[in-house]
Amino acid sequence: MQDGIGPAVESLIRVRYAETDKQGVVYHANYIIYFEVGRTDFCASAGYPYPRMEEDGVFIVVVEAAARYRKAARYGDELTVLTRFGGFRSRGCSFHYQILLPDGTLSAEGETHHLFLDSAGRPRTVPEAVRRAFATFTAS
Amino acid sequence: MQDGIGPAVESLIRVRYAETDKQGVVYHANYIIYFEVGRTDFCASAGYPYPRMEEDGVFIVVVEAAARYRKAARYGDELTVLTRFGGFRSRGCSFHYQILLPDGTLSAEGETHHLFLDSAGRPRTVPEAVRRAFATFTAS
Amino acid sequence: MQDGIGPAVESLIRVRYAETDKQGVVYHANYIIYFEVGRTDFCASAGYPYPRMEEDGVFIVVVEAAARYRKAARYGDELTVLTRFGGFRSRGCSFHYQILLPDGTLSAEGETHHLFLDSAGRPRTVPEAVRRAFATFTAS
Amino acid sequence: MQDGIGPAVESLIRVRYAETDKQGVVYHANYIIYFEVGRTDFCASAGYPYPRMEEDGVFIVVVEAAARYRKAARYGDELTVLTRFGGFRSRGCSFHYQILLPDGTLSAEGETHHLFLDSAGRPRTVPEAVRRAFATFTAS
Repeated sequence: MQDGIGPAVESLIRVRYAETDKQGVVYHANYIIYFEVGRTDFCASAGYPYPRMEEDGVFIVVVEAAARYRKAARYGDELTVLTRFGGFRSRGCSFHYQILLPDGTLSAEGETHHLFLDSAGRPRTVPEAVRRAFATFTAS
Repeated sequence: MQDGIGPAVESLIRVRYAETDKQGVVYHANYIIYFEVGRTDFCASAGYPYPRMEEDGVFIVVVEAAARYRKAARYGDELTVLTRFGGFRSRGCSFHYQILLPDGTLSAEGETHHLFLDSAGRPRTVPEAVRRAFATFTAS
Repeated sequence: MQDGIGPAVESLIRVRYAETDKQGVVYHANYIIYFEVGRTDFCASAGYPYPRMEEDGVFIVVVEAAARYRKAARYGDELTVLTRFGGFRSRGCSFHYQILLPDGTLSAEGETHHLFLDSAGRPRTVPEAVRRAFATFTAS
Repeated sequence: MQDGIGPAVESLIRVRYAETDKQGVVYHANYIIYFEVGRTDFCASAGYPYPRMEEDGVFIVVVEAAARYRKAARYGDELTVLTRFGGFRSRGCSFHYQILLPDGTLSAEGETHHLFLDSAGRPRTVPEAVRRAFATFTAS
């Protein structure tokens, strides 16, 4: 199964000691942070880095996040995050993520759903520049 | 809507500065940690504290987690986590969570699904003592 | 040895699973977050809650932090943070912290040094209201 | 000033959204985690990766950590961590760190002090293989 539209953006993450827990593996909430790393890299690869979005007065908030855990990652593992775009909704969009262990097996996967806000914190339609950038990228 | 079986266990959490992000609100992955606080309190209230489980060679791992975000929590807010049991599966169980802002409105809700492992990390059936403790509690 | 001026403010913290690492104990950087919890409680006890400071345009930043670790804290431990005021400098102040295990032995201790900033991020003298609140409290 | 012995090991860290706080900058405790990333890379560069140490029954614990903050790092910044060895003590060692902003200015610096433990958690002398690896590297 391969969720999402268009090419996957690849991020490399080295697991930190801080990210493990007393079971000796990555604490589950940290995968949600790894998704954020993937999303940040996706926006940059798609030509609209997220820091620039906020400078332009566009804020993306998370309205839903889900993760399914398959095989635990460990301290020192170099993980690959594959991030794909999940499409636009009227005032939002979604992303799909797969996190792979060094040997290529799936560690976790999930998705996040987002709303676009203006600088006053009100929901707004998808900015045209973002729509164009992501559409061009996912069609590539 | 009220997911879960039996009474809710209530946890109080004061939002830390460390848990906020540059949007001025609680970073979304931290709610998954708040769920863990609720789950820990649930196990203690149900008469089988999770630290004791691990001493008894029973480990609970998270196989799925999901959160839906409604209204952002802020630094200094005292949040209430309501945790309800979601029932057993053959080798696992689930929990439901609601996180309320100080004025009682819903900040976030979600659920986690778990597997029971033995101390060698193999899936195992639900320990009888856990089943009994949770069943008694949810029937109360 | 008892560093700091005046009474200690006491905070209770239950160690979260998320805060442990693969050595089975609290990851060392998390004690710096426990210090923050103590500092927040100190400001509230001294009559000038930190969230109010920021509303009043006064921001406290950390310019130095140090911790010495004595005995590891573990998942489920209820820790006591004792926070004492360390005095004012021209544009800053400091705090001292002791973190105690459930049996009263010292887990860690440390201190943080701070600068006061205005809402534009420029160093400023200690706000008179803060000075008065902390001075009254430490003399109590 | 350049603390530490021998060459600096360089680590690159991209600041995550999760690592910022409501002041819009990196939360101070996270620099202590950046130090850990630097230390991990130092051990790998010196020929004795820390994951291998733990497999060999050698555990390094932190007994002291300190950081001095100069200029705040922000979301998206690519930081450079420079880690230098601080020398051995009878049963421990230390490391020095400098964290640089993308333009090369100093964001923070600090040091950590460590003890070596055996797998039973007792202090032990510096393992000969570690001493040799680090001595060779710092003399390089």
